[in-house]
Amino acid sequence: MTQAAERVLHAGLRNKIMSAEQAAEFIQNGMMLAVTGFTGAGYPKALPTAIAEKAKAEHAAGRPFSVGMVTGASTAPECDGVLAAANAVHFRNPFQSDPTLRNNINAGNIAYQDMHLSHVEQQMRQGFYGEFDVAIVELSGITADGKLIPAMGIGHASEAIKAAKKVILEVNFAQSAKLEGMHDVQFDIGVPPHRKPINILHPFDRIGTPYLECDLDKIVAVVLTNGSDRNSKFTEPDDNSKRIAAQIIDFFSNEVKAGRLPKNLLPLQSGVGNVANAVMAGLLDSPFEDLTGYTEVLQDGMLDLIIAGKMKSASATALSFSPDALQRFNDNIDFLRDKLVLRPMEFTNNPEVIRRLGVIGMNAMIEADIYGNVNSTHVMGTKMMNGIGGSGDFTRNAFFSFFVSPSVAKDGAISCIVPMVSHHDHTEHDVMFIVTEQGMADLRCKSPRQRAQLIINNCAHPDYRDMLRDYYDRAEKAGGLHTPHLLLEALSWHQRFVETGDMRVK
Amino acid sequence: MTQAAERVLHAGLRNKIMSAEQAAEFIQNGMMLAVTGFTGAGYPKALPTAIAEKAKAEHAAGRPFSVGMVTGASTAPECDGVLAAANAVHFRNPFQSDPTLRNNINAGNIAYQDMHLSHVEQQMRQGFYGEFDVAIVELSGITADGKLIPAMGIGHASEAIKAAKKVILEVNFAQSAKLEGMHDVQFDIGVPPHRKPINILHPFDRIGTPYLECDLDKIVAVVLTNGSDRNSKFTEPDDNSKRIAAQIIDFFSNEVKAGRLPKNLLPLQSGVGNVANAVMAGLLDSPFEDLTGYTEVLQDGMLDLIIAGKMKSASATALSFSPDALQRFNDNIDFLRDKLVLRPMEFTNNPEVIRRLGVIGMNAMIEADIYGNVNSTHVMGTKMMNGIGGSGDFTRNAFFSFFVSPSVAKDGAISCIVPMVSHHDHTEHDVMFIVTEQGMADLRCKSPRQRAQLIINNCAHPDYRDMLRDYYDRAEKAGGLHTPHLLLEALSWHQRFVETGDMRVK
Repeated sequence: MTQAAERVLHAGLRNKIMSAEQAAEFIQNGMMLAVTGFTGAGYPKALPTAIAEKAKAEHAAGRPFSVGMVTGASTAPECDGVLAAANAVHFRNPFQSDPTLRNNINAGNIAYQDMHLSHVEQQMRQGFYGEFDVAIVELSGITADGKLIPAMGIGHASEAIKAAKKVILEVNFAQSAKLEGMHDVQFDIGVPPHRKPINILHPFDRIGTPYLECDLDKIVAVVLTNGSDRNSKFTEPDDNSKRIAAQIIDFFSNEVKAGRLPKNLLPLQSGVGNVANAVMAGLLDSPFEDLTGYTEVLQDGMLDLIIAGKMKSASATALSFSPDALQRFNDNIDFLRDKLVLRPMEFTNNPEVIRRLGVIGMNAMIEADIYGNVNSTHVMGTKMMNGIGGSGDFTRNAFFSFFVSPSVAKDGAISCIVPMVSHHDHTEHDVMFIVTEQGMADLRCKSPRQRAQLIINNCAHPDYRDMLRDYYDRAEKAGGLHTPHLLLEALSWHQRFVETGDMRVK
Repeated sequence: MTQAAERVLHAGLRNKIMSAEQAAEFIQNGMMLAVTGFTGAGYPKALPTAIAEKAKAEHAAGRPFSVGMVTGASTAPECDGVLAAANAVHFRNPFQSDPTLRNNINAGNIAYQDMHLSHVEQQMRQGFYGEFDVAIVELSGITADGKLIPAMGIGHASEAIKAAKKVILEVNFAQSAKLEGMHDVQFDIGVPPHRKPINILHPFDRIGTPYLECDLDKIVAVVLTNGSDRNSKFTEPDDNSKRIAAQIIDFFSNEVKAGRLPKNLLPLQSGVGNVANAVMAGLLDSPFEDLTGYTEVLQDGMLDLIIAGKMKSASATALSFSPDALQRFNDNIDFLRDKLVLRPMEFTNNPEVIRRLGVIGMNAMIEADIYGNVNSTHVMGTKMMNGIGGSGDFTRNAFFSFFVSPSVAKDGAISCIVPMVSHHDHTEHDVMFIVTEQGMADLRCKSPRQRAQLIINNCAHPDYRDMLRDYYDRAEKAGGLHTPHLLLEALSWHQRFVETGDMRVK
């Protein structure tokens, strides 16, 4: 019990320590669970496997067993993965990225609701989900007076604890004990009509306290774990990513020169993934200093900006690092503590704060169309990839909103610029800039016809430009009006790919 | 000059009184204009015709003449209409509804950018449009110390005055002098990173002063006018509208009973149009008291709720009344002054305020699809009708977001529930409830497949239900995954209507 003595300092809660298998007994068929976890950080490491084993045993005995599950965002194979593999989930929201879970969602076995992350906690509080039976919350420790220290991600933890009738805590010894003090979680946003302004005026402003608080009577189990987060590796920025990053950085330089952007830019948001991460890496060698970050997930690129002294402070709801970056984080944690704050996703993704701060949003996409609509979620119109996550929260409210992607995928068989996106996540009203390795389209103050010219000429891959021009010209000639389209052909590129494996006509 | 003596009390500005024709001399070819006007209220009555005449003369002389024009929202035939008819506009945003202007937009003669209204003023301030040469602003009067009293609509007036190099004022004697004090306009929201919270905590909270302020040296002309606003008539609520209203009001009753909604509901937003207006009319006979409104355009229905004592206060950016309602407004203006506040659209439509207050958004739509995406702007995918207006600002941030429409149009030839909307303005992530006269679909916490069943069964017209079920079933069988679709057939109903005048297969 040495570990417990170090990390579970509250005597009453120490008495509730039990195995994951014992704790799983609190989970019954049909329950609604609030489970922490955000982009592979802060998710429970032990209980999901124990619940999955229980589900398998129940199924083997001919009894039904499945739960509804609301997380912060994506978790990892040992959470979403094991539960999906055991057919133990019937409802899931607001975001996921696990292959097994995804397959079950696409097969129609799991009702998955893709959702703006900023909507989750308020809809929990407003009763839209009904009652939550159990919250499962990963922590890095518990103080002597029973306050809860979150781990590497917060997401909806604060609201999960408030909403659930019972709470199970997982205290993870693998996380640094020095995380204590890095969080800013306890702030009651309330429900309408009694809400107050959220007084975050600068990215690093703290408005709450560093600890989650919970009625101790609600806590039915404490489980000790010692497992690392998902810690996925990033690929090294390739030429395409570097070209995309260079264009965005050039644009920033020009805006600063024109006096439309402060010298240290505005708070940066960077979506998940390699290309978005590469933009951050590009800023390492840029002339910009005193940068700030107001983002959802803080990845390797932004961490390195802070360690290098280029970024003075950043706010996020989760830390999603490669194994190497995690090492750098832990090595520099004393230096980082007054530069990095972790908040509930209700604040990192809040329209009020994002708009006030003037965040610069940079998000990856699956595809954009010639009129500036963006698909972030569906492959070929019907297959869910991950989800919209926070991209809508940032894009709609950003000072600048960028969507980035290489212009082609699958060795050129897929064009990321299409006549009409096969699923709409961000409409023409929300998308300001599209950037591929080919170039950038500034869509501000442009009509659909003007946008089409810019996107085709600047962003599309040369192999697809003539095809796109041909589509546009024929759509216009056929009587297409404000937004020219050929309705029966608009989605035919996707259908061709489904049938032939290539969007190009052979 | 009696009228001027009454309404233009500042001596210096009285000296700048001139005819509309003289004032139009300040407008040159290629200029960018900020012109007030919001849903047929608060737009200049005289200058647009004078500018249109100038344009015609220039064109007759073989010289080019056109302007870019940013308004609050829609204006009227004597503003947008005359300018479009004279081919005097080359760029227009953020919203319009004039038939002549619309035809020119759809013909590709005018570059029209459809835009969220809450984005307009901040993008003006942030320099996204470039420079504004002249602002044309309708007022109801000017005080002795040169402060400007807006008329029946504000929209972007405050920012227009700040942004423009020169300002032309139209003082309209037809508007009640008693409007003075009803506005709350002067508040500097600033640019990032120096923005502060917007301290509107209740719909009626005032954060500014009742007057627009302007550097008097920028004012180059004052034009006196005496013209009424557009004052379009509403149709009496028909059976379909009444059925839609009754369902929404029933839903409110149930939510109040369940304790999820306060007894006096939450601040109501009602979109433009007959159906949305009918919901307000329905509330007149409902059990709800002490209602509040936080809306963009205040129409007859909400006015009558206030006069009847059912609504205690309301906030809007413009008053758009039928001639009868205008009479009731003017007759009751002393009673209404401490119950009704008019603000810049940057505040009425602000995500921060809408989310904090928990506004209930109710907006009309052109069509919805079986997965809950909504088209608010385009007819048959390519023809711009009016624009998205504030519907996105409210829908994305609302406590409840409703979209309403009769289930069919054109005597049944058009289904308002389709396999895939032909243009996406509000995505599945933003739409909570779809209501037709057939019924209501509550889409909260539902997967796309679950939504499809609800929308087809509850909202679609019986004539179209089997067709929709057939589409969905075949899409699912053909391998459609999270969101089943047949990509080549998804928009075929619209194409069939274009070709045969009927979405139904003959």
